[in-house]
Amino acid sequence: MFRTKTCGELRIENVGEQVTLAGWVQRIRKMGGMTFVDLRDRYGITQLSFNQETNALVFDKANKLGREFVLQVRGTVVERYSKNANLPTGDIEINVEELNVLNESITPPFTIEEDTDGGDDIRMKYRYLDLRRECVRRNLELRHKMAFEVRRYLDEQGFLEVETPVLVNSTPEGARDFVVPSRMNQGQFYALPQSPQTLKQLLMVAGFDRYFQIVKCFRDEDLRADRQPEFTQIDCEMSFVEQEDILNMFEGMSRHLFKVIKGIDLPKLPRMTWADAMKYYGSDKPDTRFEMCFVELMDVLKGYGFSVFDNAQYIGGICAKGAASYTRKQIDQLTDFVKRPQVGAKGLVYARVEADGTVKSSVDKFYTQEVLQQLKEAMQAQAGDLILIISGDDTLKARKQLCELRLEMGTQLGLRDKNKYSCLWVIDFPMYEWSDEEQRLMAMHHPFTSPKPEDIPLLDTDPAAVRANAYDMVINGVEVGGGSIRIHDAKLQQKIFEILGFTPEQAQQKFGFLMNAFKYGAPPHGGLAYGLDRFVSLFAGLDSIRDCIAFPKNNQGRDVMLGAPGIIDQSQLDELQLEIKKEK
Amino acid sequence: MFRTKTCGELRIENVGEQVTLAGWVQRIRKMGGMTFVDLRDRYGITQLSFNQETNALVFDKANKLGREFVLQVRGTVVERYSKNANLPTGDIEINVEELNVLNESITPPFTIEEDTDGGDDIRMKYRYLDLRRECVRRNLELRHKMAFEVRRYLDEQGFLEVETPVLVNSTPEGARDFVVPSRMNQGQFYALPQSPQTLKQLLMVAGFDRYFQIVKCFRDEDLRADRQPEFTQIDCEMSFVEQEDILNMFEGMSRHLFKVIKGIDLPKLPRMTWADAMKYYGSDKPDTRFEMCFVELMDVLKGYGFSVFDNAQYIGGICAKGAASYTRKQIDQLTDFVKRPQVGAKGLVYARVEADGTVKSSVDKFYTQEVLQQLKEAMQAQAGDLILIISGDDTLKARKQLCELRLEMGTQLGLRDKNKYSCLWVIDFPMYEWSDEEQRLMAMHHPFTSPKPEDIPLLDTDPAAVRANAYDMVINGVEVGGGSIRIHDAKLQQKIFEILGFTPEQAQQKFGFLMNAFKYGAPPHGGLAYGLDRFVSLFAGLDSIRDCIAFPKNNQGRDVMLGAPGIIDQSQLDELQLEIKKEK
Repeated sequence: MFRTKTCGELRIENVGEQVTLAGWVQRIRKMGGMTFVDLRDRYGITQLSFNQETNALVFDKANKLGREFVLQVRGTVVERYSKNANLPTGDIEINVEELNVLNESITPPFTIEEDTDGGDDIRMKYRYLDLRRECVRRNLELRHKMAFEVRRYLDEQGFLEVETPVLVNSTPEGARDFVVPSRMNQGQFYALPQSPQTLKQLLMVAGFDRYFQIVKCFRDEDLRADRQPEFTQIDCEMSFVEQEDILNMFEGMSRHLFKVIKGIDLPKLPRMTWADAMKYYGSDKPDTRFEMCFVELMDVLKGYGFSVFDNAQYIGGICAKGAASYTRKQIDQLTDFVKRPQVGAKGLVYARVEADGTVKSSVDKFYTQEVLQQLKEAMQAQAGDLILIISGDDTLKARKQLCELRLEMGTQLGLRDKNKYSCLWVIDFPMYEWSDEEQRLMAMHHPFTSPKPEDIPLLDTDPAAVRANAYDMVINGVEVGGGSIRIHDAKLQQKIFEILGFTPEQAQQKFGFLMNAFKYGAPPHGGLAYGLDRFVSLFAGLDSIRDCIAFPKNNQGRDVMLGAPGIIDQSQLDELQLEIKKEK
Repeated sequence: MFRTKTCGELRIENVGEQVTLAGWVQRIRKMGGMTFVDLRDRYGITQLSFNQETNALVFDKANKLGREFVLQVRGTVVERYSKNANLPTGDIEINVEELNVLNESITPPFTIEEDTDGGDDIRMKYRYLDLRRECVRRNLELRHKMAFEVRRYLDEQGFLEVETPVLVNSTPEGARDFVVPSRMNQGQFYALPQSPQTLKQLLMVAGFDRYFQIVKCFRDEDLRADRQPEFTQIDCEMSFVEQEDILNMFEGMSRHLFKVIKGIDLPKLPRMTWADAMKYYGSDKPDTRFEMCFVELMDVLKGYGFSVFDNAQYIGGICAKGAASYTRKQIDQLTDFVKRPQVGAKGLVYARVEADGTVKSSVDKFYTQEVLQQLKEAMQAQAGDLILIISGDDTLKARKQLCELRLEMGTQLGLRDKNKYSCLWVIDFPMYEWSDEEQRLMAMHHPFTSPKPEDIPLLDTDPAAVRANAYDMVINGVEVGGGSIRIHDAKLQQKIFEILGFTPEQAQQKFGFLMNAFKYGAPPHGGLAYGLDRFVSLFAGLDSIRDCIAFPKNNQGRDVMLGAPGIIDQSQLDELQLEIKKEK
């Protein structure tokens, strides 16, 4: 070993010890006859001191060091004159007797500090330098720890981690696949899995009983801040279970993670139906760190001659506690916010509850104080509160607009603290949602999801009303996991495919291997998958999943450090019998 | 839950309990007014009994069951009349009161038994049924356990598991890459990683200090029994270490695995230089479960007029203890064995040591008894032993032939017990090997491997003689892991690339991102990678890695269950701007 101790472990008790450390030069301070160097490794920072009087040779050498040089030093642990209470090693320093430069460094393109001067692009190009920053490294340490604790918990619960293949077949439902041309089977392609969904169901058919896998999944989608072409799932499946068993098992897993990682005792998770989540929060992933639930106001505000409301299909309000002090300018900004194309509302109506209890609204000319008092009542608003109202022709869209406004108000009022966690299950999702694009019902979760037994009769009469045994775990408005009880009956599966518009031949061609497997004794089963990247981001309080991925890709799907993707040799294309079409 | 107990846990102490079990019908036996069903799940088998007298309705239902039906049963645990000592649950059975068929099964295409009647092809097509067989499932349970214990050990040693990307850039050295066309960057391709070699080195540059990952790797090679297009590595890297540190760390990991999984206390691993391994075993992965080391016989057997030996560049023998009793026919078979094209020897010379100590050889007409006694002496052969000799023009080839013969003799003499483990390190590999095909020196390990410091001067004068700081862990003749100390000096790396025949421009183009990273303070580092599939196979005593992979591919790289690879839609090709070339 190049060291006897790390840069993070020396304390006042070690004073007098001879030690050897190795690490990177974080900072150099020259003070007359003394030079101080902060030496950094993964474990911490230790101050080195070089004294011109006692060791001029080593002192001279130290004065030639630069930032990020790699050093090995031998010396004695001594107590510091001026201690640094912010540093675990801040009581001591190393009186260096021997200095060995293991490697030099040219000047880094940005500072290796918590607050770096490097922009996103340059930090990604030199990601190996960005990863030297403690704040970035800590995210990956957290990721390691979370993955390890997931494995520990599931292992203890009798789950087996089974690796499923990465080179699989292209699946027709869902997102776009990445494909891999096969050299040995020319003209044919593998696909990279969007998830091991069908494979884990086959493992249940195989009697594996409890399966999990922390596994890379792939989707060739246009990218957003919280999407990556490759991402990691905690993928789980259980046999002989009902929805209740799965919710309990994975509530337990989340409780374990919160306890061992964050030191938080998670209360029993509340459950909210999808219908309630949409009604009260306008979202299937409500941020329940704060209330501000929707109140429907059709009965209260219709019929007074305000045509916007009179013609609306939906009128809903939220009550922002204590926000009556909002200025006209602030309210104008909120109006602009909801009118942005990303939100898409036509406008915003507000009503202030004054100190004396009277209500003053932006639509006073249509409503008497009496009606406004009914509004106040309905909203359970009090003196000092601000009521914000959105209406629209389309209930779903209006709710989504109100949801955006609610989240914005939560942010403005400081109600979305990253260190506070609010977790819940959203249950009873609909089986289907209508696709305007495809002009057909689409599976909301995926086509293997089981309907609720009591809703099965509706499959024939009103499929859009059928609820699924499907559930999501939501934390702070983020869907961290979701799953369902699966169909294990081949006939029911056939019927679901029919409703999704597959002919029996298409269903056979696309999912034949799974439907065939179900003929040989499929057990009742179900499961779920967590997005590990999102889960870690939440625990780390990050805005983007990128910051908890060692080597993420940018919005063009590029790894700018590796230069991937790139051009390949013609010989590689020839072996694959592929040709790149010329642009026309 | 569909059950209160599993099929593996009930014992005599549970007699009298009301239980609910769920599982698959393994076997049905009808005996007059009684029907017995073996119910199977992942945890074991429990006998169910159905009694016509006490419950005719359920009895009738039971008689309509078929193999692999999925059942839920409720009943009472009772003591068996005739106990089955081979079954952990063999003392009890369930008196079934309620029978619920959860799913039916058509007749499986092969029997779900230890000794199945299904051939390889049909078992792969119905892998989900093959996985129901206990012997297959046990391999995957072992795999889970080994992976978990690897993680536990490395976590305790301060290693961080970091996920590296699967969509990377094509690497020019090594095997053939699988490539993935990029839709967002048309005409460009990602490659799937053959290993995370460069990425883990970048993590060392990033100061991660101790990294590991259990990770899928990909090689588009023509396949053999122990090769798969996708395989799993335990990939590790450490900073500020010398070879000795790495050997100790991973010897510790192997010791941990042998102890917790197999209950074996591994002795301190012997170390053998690559030169000795080649000299005494003709292989860089010697099977050291048995001795039978090579003895070079040039001095003993040259110059007596036997032209085959007189003209040979190499003559080597092995002594098969107690095999003097081999018949002429057996020796002819050995001769045929070494003459097979896969081995390629010209012939085989043998010498028997008779009971009286005299030696009788197949080349008696050239050698006096005196010389044959010298041979006996050199081979340390005793009465009853059989000496087998191979010679050739090419030392390396002759040794490889003798190696094959040695292994065959080891097998024939029962010296290769799968339950006995012999582990060692092979060290001091050469840096380079000559490629006849490429007509240049190739990196034996990979181009980032560090030469031994004392051999660096030879880089200029005799590069083929330079030894590397590279090492393999070998168990029972299988290379389970290997690695090296890496070069961390950009100038030395440049020189190595030159010797490998890269111009500075080529080196920059192919490895520029790594060489660039090394300019910013790369620490001394090294590591290794284990083949998890092989490691598990060894622990399970399997002949092929396929048996410890849930969904393996066949020799054509096909997953016959999924039907992958397959044809993709024209629209997918169009989006990727790709065309499949027509066969000419």
